Amino acid sequence: MKTEALSWDHLLALAAQWVLGYRSRIGDLPVLARVQPGWLTAQLPASPPEDGEPPEAWFSDLDNIILPAVTHWNHPGFLGYFGITGSPPGVVADLVSSTLNVNGMLWKTCPALTELEQVVLSWYAQALGLPTSWFGVITDTASTSTLLALGAARQRAFPGSRERGLTGGPKLRLYCSQEAHSSVDKAAMVLGIGRENVVRVPADAQFRMRPDLLADAIQQDRNAGYLPFAVVATVGTTSSTSVDPVAEMAEVCREHGLWLHVDAAYAGSAAVAPEFRWALSGCELADSFVANPHKWFFTPIDCSCLFTAHPETFRQAYSLVPAYLTTDAAGVVDLMDYSFQLGRRFRALKLWFVFRAYGTKGLAEAIRTHVALAHEFAGWVEASQDFELLAPVPFSVVNFRWHPRGLDDEARLAKLNGHLLQKVNGSGKVFLSHTTLYGRFALHLAVGNLETNRDWLENAWLEITRAAQTLGSC
Amino acid sequence: MKTEALSWDHLLALAAQWVLGYRSRIGDLPVLARVQPGWLTAQLPASPPEDGEPPEAWFSDLDNIILPAVTHWNHPGFLGYFGITGSPPGVVADLVSSTLNVNGMLWKTCPALTELEQVVLSWYAQALGLPTSWFGVITDTASTSTLLALGAARQRAFPGSRERGLTGGPKLRLYCSQEAHSSVDKAAMVLGIGRENVVRVPADAQFRMRPDLLADAIQQDRNAGYLPFAVVATVGTTSSTSVDPVAEMAEVCREHGLWLHVDAAYAGSAAVAPEFRWALSGCELADSFVANPHKWFFTPIDCSCLFTAHPETFRQAYSLVPAYLTTDAAGVVDLMDYSFQLGRRFRALKLWFVFRAYGTKGLAEAIRTHVALAHEFAGWVEASQDFELLAPVPFSVVNFRWHPRGLDDEARLAKLNGHLLQKVNGSGKVFLSHTTLYGRFALHLAVGNLETNRDWLENAWLEITRAAQTLGSC
Repeated sequence: MKTEALSWDHLLALAAQWVLGYRSRIGDLPVLARVQPGWLTAQLPASPPEDGEPPEAWFSDLDNIILPAVTHWNHPGFLGYFGITGSPPGVVADLVSSTLNVNGMLWKTCPALTELEQVVLSWYAQALGLPTSWFGVITDTASTSTLLALGAARQRAFPGSRERGLTGGPKLRLYCSQEAHSSVDKAAMVLGIGRENVVRVPADAQFRMRPDLLADAIQQDRNAGYLPFAVVATVGTTSSTSVDPVAEMAEVCREHGLWLHVDAAYAGSAAVAPEFRWALSGCELADSFVANPHKWFFTPIDCSCLFTAHPETFRQAYSLVPAYLTTDAAGVVDLMDYSFQLGRRFRALKLWFVFRAYGTKGLAEAIRTHVALAHEFAGWVEASQDFELLAPVPFSVVNFRWHPRGLDDEARLAKLNGHLLQKVNGSGKVFLSHTTLYGRFALHLAVGNLETNRDWLENAWLEITRAAQTLGSC
Repeated sequence: MKTEALSWDHLLALAAQWVLGYRSRIGDLPVLARVQPGWLTAQLPASPPEDGEPPEAWFSDLDNIILPAVTHWNHPGFLGYFGITGSPPGVVADLVSSTLNVNGMLWKTCPALTELEQVVLSWYAQALGLPTSWFGVITDTASTSTLLALGAARQRAFPGSRERGLTGGPKLRLYCSQEAHSSVDKAAMVLGIGRENVVRVPADAQFRMRPDLLADAIQQDRNAGYLPFAVVATVGTTSSTSVDPVAEMAEVCREHGLWLHVDAAYAGSAAVAPEFRWALSGCELADSFVANPHKWFFTPIDCSCLFTAHPETFRQAYSLVPAYLTTDAAGVVDLMDYSFQLGRRFRALKLWFVFRAYGTKGLAEAIRTHVALAHEFAGWVEASQDFELLAPVPFSVVNFRWHPRGLDDEARLAKLNGHLLQKVNGSGKVFLSHTTLYGRFALHLAVGNLETNRDWLENAWLEITRAAQTLGSC
């Protein structure tokens, strides 16, 4: 391999060319990968090359064997899960981060990483109307953020747990809505609290936790000898994007001395638009809070922002400084003290570039557009005789199903909507996901991509209604 | 903001230009950031911009306020911790990953991510001579990998822990060397096992765990009513890069039915060169194993490879599939089942590009060069009257100190070597870190950067010996 083949300028030129080519045809690629399991594996050599290969070969493989096996989250017709999107400013910032290749475990090992992270998290908190006194760190995912927060809550409730562990300790319990994300259960499993000790509190007809039932559950558990220690409220649940009554839940937490963690991974970012600020009402009372710019703030994956009113409790839970990491810098934040993860990428750069590129006004406008698009789609569903909404649409997600008159067998509806979903997703033009809402199979459509416009949604609706017409024969 | 200002082609051109400019002068920048705490914070607006700003402004800020606050891990004189390095192929692959912006939680949400991860991890295992039957996943850091592995070990030892938690369960204990990384303690803290239940087994004069003392400790704990469940062996400890006697430790684990996890975060990659294959001897008997391509395999941070012989135990510990993540793809790997983290970046791309760019021969040659450089440096230390080595040099790390004849007060030696370190790091040309080895303060020099050559090491040695000459007056 000649040295210049691997030079920075040659590779950057090839990469930029590849990115531009990919972006220019993203709308023409099938959204959902059409390959069978094992297809890509079969295209790849079973063993690593002994000798280097020219970069032109890797980049052409990107087109020939990687892209066909990619489900294109960038496609404007990708409307499943939480449709997410990066943005050109976020992506090039990530290139800068990969280039710098710093590890921000200590302030000293990259002051810029540490301080920029603090500053952009303050910007993000301000943009969402959250307390600016909060301390924030960036993690990879909301699952990690929630795990860290519940670990801190455990530390506060049972300070001995860090050193002595949980065996022989109190019977800890935590609470969340039936609609809360599975990451709450996973956190309890990892933390040694156990999944059984995640009490899932029923929600109301609009999928919001019932705070009265939360208070009852806590009291019952207290009476039964458990130690309730934390509550997780969700702002924008994964299935229906419902918003728990955070202020009332905070009041219950205050009465009982419980830690309140808010999972606003998806919907938190909406609050950058003043008309969605209501969704975070009560969140200022939380002990910890997570929102993910990689979900709905145009920042490439991964970027999850974890805030807390109690950074000292995080340090009590996670700080541990071995001899090789002692430092002479006094009075600084060392980010390794707030997590079990030691190494960390320079993730703040991408959020910084996103803020600077769009400004809070531009970000608010993008969110506003997405919500308006979702509402328009919901209107089409409501106006249709054969479809119905299955949940309110507070943000950019619509849950609906095909439900023609006279067909009320739930099992059959689930099956037929499953067929419909397969057909629509097979079109290559649209991708929806699915969920279950009070036992009903729901088609789940989420708008989150900067390039998803009205035309793409109209096209999705066309595919859906067309597919529905063929269901009679199923 | 005009649309074209934020277009892909304009931003990619600016970013490429910035990267080339930065790379061309990396050796001229001070290695260790020279800013005072708070300097960068003071340069940044306290609040986010309301309106977007032109990209030229962000990129010039990168030069003017970010770079002065960066500690340059890319600098060829960065020789602290484990000196790491990305590479042009790894960096541009990361750009592709950020561009694709996929979330590989399920096979279906990006078959390419899932399958390429399996294939390149098999390549990596083959390159290091590890069992190809192992199952591998990429995580962000070795801390996460070790946490996941010990969580799986806990699951095997106490299957009820996932659902019921640890309260009322057996008194779990795990074992590692006194020299093992702090991530083992942190994992025990997070998992609810407690730091007290991490038994640190003494090492020999060469910093390798004593397997006889391991067996004794396990037996003693059994007698005392504990349930020993896991042992962590280290291949390349953080301070001295010593290699635990893995085969003998595996034998102890087999006798007692304990899970053996190997932390080869740094030194594992060395085995790509046949002459360092010895370091992984016995690792084929491990239940889980971690090595970090972002440490010494020219892959940008973050990329940690976790392998296991028991993927089903990981699924038992971590798999949990809510309604919104059920999938119709049968017989596939869904990576979310092996971790508490749901979302995941397309990290396999960068490892793939690194393999294809350099081939196993090129990678072996780079490792070989680094070890040879470290040995050469160690030779200078040994030849000097005023310096001494404090540990063997099996890989690319040299631990040494200034120790002139007649000065044997350990506290004074620590203080003076601390001064020396400050002086050397203040030069801007070199950065070393430090550690403690059997109570002695050690200067810690690590070669890991593709651009660190003999000239840079000679220069480092010159700075060190010069600084030592001024110590007499301290």
